[in-house]
Amino acid sequence: MANTSVPDRQLIEGKPALVVIDIQKSTFIDNSAVRSIDNMPGYKERMIAAKDLIDSAHERDVPVIFIQEVHRPDFVDFGRELDGREGIHCLDGDPRTEIAKEEMGFLDGDYIVPKRRYSAFFGTDFEILLRGLQVNTLILCGGLTDVCVHYTFVDAHQSDYFCRVVEDCVAGSSIEAHEAALNAMEYLQTGARQQRSAVIEAISEYNAAA
Amino acid sequence: MANTSVPDRQLIEGKPALVVIDIQKSTFIDNSAVRSIDNMPGYKERMIAAKDLIDSAHERDVPVIFIQEVHRPDFVDFGRELDGREGIHCLDGDPRTEIAKEEMGFLDGDYIVPKRRYSAFFGTDFEILLRGLQVNTLILCGGLTDVCVHYTFVDAHQSDYFCRVVEDCVAGSSIEAHEAALNAMEYLQTGARQQRSAVIEAISEYNAAA
Amino acid sequence: MANTSVPDRQLIEGKPALVVIDIQKSTFIDNSAVRSIDNMPGYKERMIAAKDLIDSAHERDVPVIFIQEVHRPDFVDFGRELDGREGIHCLDGDPRTEIAKEEMGFLDGDYIVPKRRYSAFFGTDFEILLRGLQVNTLILCGGLTDVCVHYTFVDAHQSDYFCRVVEDCVAGSSIEAHEAALNAMEYLQTGARQQRSAVIEAISEYNAAA
Amino acid sequence: MANTSVPDRQLIEGKPALVVIDIQKSTFIDNSAVRSIDNMPGYKERMIAAKDLIDSAHERDVPVIFIQEVHRPDFVDFGRELDGREGIHCLDGDPRTEIAKEEMGFLDGDYIVPKRRYSAFFGTDFEILLRGLQVNTLILCGGLTDVCVHYTFVDAHQSDYFCRVVEDCVAGSSIEAHEAALNAMEYLQTGARQQRSAVIEAISEYNAAA
Repeated sequence: MANTSVPDRQLIEGKPALVVIDIQKSTFIDNSAVRSIDNMPGYKERMIAAKDLIDSAHERDVPVIFIQEVHRPDFVDFGRELDGREGIHCLDGDPRTEIAKEEMGFLDGDYIVPKRRYSAFFGTDFEILLRGLQVNTLILCGGLTDVCVHYTFVDAHQSDYFCRVVEDCVAGSSIEAHEAALNAMEYLQTGARQQRSAVIEAISEYNAAA
Repeated sequence: MANTSVPDRQLIEGKPALVVIDIQKSTFIDNSAVRSIDNMPGYKERMIAAKDLIDSAHERDVPVIFIQEVHRPDFVDFGRELDGREGIHCLDGDPRTEIAKEEMGFLDGDYIVPKRRYSAFFGTDFEILLRGLQVNTLILCGGLTDVCVHYTFVDAHQSDYFCRVVEDCVAGSSIEAHEAALNAMEYLQTGARQQRSAVIEAISEYNAAA
Repeated sequence: MANTSVPDRQLIEGKPALVVIDIQKSTFIDNSAVRSIDNMPGYKERMIAAKDLIDSAHERDVPVIFIQEVHRPDFVDFGRELDGREGIHCLDGDPRTEIAKEEMGFLDGDYIVPKRRYSAFFGTDFEILLRGLQVNTLILCGGLTDVCVHYTFVDAHQSDYFCRVVEDCVAGSSIEAHEAALNAMEYLQTGARQQRSAVIEAISEYNAAA
Repeated sequence: MANTSVPDRQLIEGKPALVVIDIQKSTFIDNSAVRSIDNMPGYKERMIAAKDLIDSAHERDVPVIFIQEVHRPDFVDFGRELDGREGIHCLDGDPRTEIAKEEMGFLDGDYIVPKRRYSAFFGTDFEILLRGLQVNTLILCGGLTDVCVHYTFVDAHQSDYFCRVVEDCVAGSSIEAHEAALNAMEYLQTGARQQRSAVIEAISEYNAAA
């Protein structure tokens, strides 16, 4: 390893927020084998597993931010997104585009940030919200590990946030792509990959009032 | 594959620019096995191979933009970059940080864009330059495939540019990470992965005056 | 004047969009003398005058983009906005925060871009939308001339758009501030200040299909 | 005044930085009446007055950041900047473009941030630097009051920084434009306008080590 003096970091440095990326109704509505976006096996179960994270954040007054991919129905904002493997997805007004509020235990006081691109930072008010919340550590779950989670992580990392990804509460377009993205995130910040159990424990010990 | 109607794209759509990412003197100076940033086998040869791309761009008046990673010597702008696998790197004033101008055949009229982060778009004037050049297609070479190349590609993709990566003129932190990043880019834009020979042929047929 | 060779520009260069800034229900609901944000005399009439612009844009298939200032009800995203002359304003859920759709003749196919700050570019998808529409000229109306209009103009100008402000369809926090902001915009782009009649004439001659 | 509960702020909130905007050699070299950018009477004297601010910041270990407008010599990055009152200015390689280091008492350890546009935030690493320095309050001096100072203030304000402008150490394109811009900044943050003497006193009382 090239870096011989990685600083010793806590799972939660400073003030945390839980960032739930693109857990939308489509995961719970669309059971077709061919989807507009490929999903690895066990996708839905990994999203369901994120609910425990959200519950633990609610209990400790850790802000919960739901990111929602949504495109204008005239396709004007797809940019280059249809030039690759993804088909038309997440149209505004489509019930599958809604945040999976019931399945995820969404509460009043949780935040929603709609986005048009993969990174939650790109063309959104996410940064304004994070500054307002004075957050230092972002804990990421949701999907796709190798697209929206990975590229949100990268922008957060480049913006000086401590970043963690809950590896059993994210899922990718394929198992290979999921695993490669987790490795790429761990390359950027040692200790980025975390298990749900460890994250819930760290959140349970977090004192928002301190 | 989820997208059943990928549009048919040319290798060069509209006006191209060649983007040479972080080919700096360190590659040609530092032969130590342990480096501040890990390199896959054959790294230097892949950077040298990029010179033919640059020469072909010069011949056809395709703009050549050299991206240069450079950090202030008091470390103030490293952000979270030392929290992972990379050690201290690319300090301003260190001869290894200089663009490899001689090795790459740098010419007057080529552009240099210094950057502090992985993506060439982050905290730089790259976007201003691309607008001024009225560029539509970015052809990427250099390194690391899985870090600066990948994340520059992602921001370019999110900013609606057609993006190509010259797979034999990029190199990663490891072969596995290199290959995974190439796959991730191809996921975003079908036809993103290109061989140097095909790119040189497309450039040779490009008419900047048209 | 310092610039002796200002290029000769058309009122509409390339493809236009009409940008309607912060014409919200509050203007038509709140008649109190003391408001959360100061308005110059004749404010409402100048907003009403913008409807003719919007109608003319609809007739010629010029995209109409409504910008909407809106803040989260827990105040988390006000930043420094309450450190100056403006009181709490534009809360999400307040009927006064809604776009003045009826008064402005809003049509299906018009766009809405919510924002948290003064500039329509700051923390929004406005840039993504403009790229998707392939717009070159932004025609601005609404309010406040000296705040959201001025600072949106500045960001558009810095992003290489041709910018026009319809001086009888904007209004400021005071007459002095309104006039100073118009002068500042004209400083940036000669010919930026335009009368509604001239803009409607230029739009009526614009051929979206050309 | 619309805001009846402006919070009570210190001149310096949290950690300050002194931001010296576009005090370049041209001010001390070019004595011609017709310049590429108009200057109000007393321009040079107001820039010279900024040196005392810089000296006081050096004494108290307050970071000093010099912003430098600089354009590529092939004009590629002027964007719309030549469509208004400003002629060609600040070319890279022109001695007048250099920071006025001698006149301003520049020291090793001071920072330089080159920029292509008016706002110091636009297409630069200024934000990265400010995050690295963990700065909360920006104290602005330099020129033009109504262009680069004003628009840097606006972006800083929108990014949640406490902003102060030293009104006797800034100068505009005209006295009217200078005064209007100062009023616009005071509109955004009450107490933004400050005299040099008060700022020097506040800096002298600031304890960087606290």
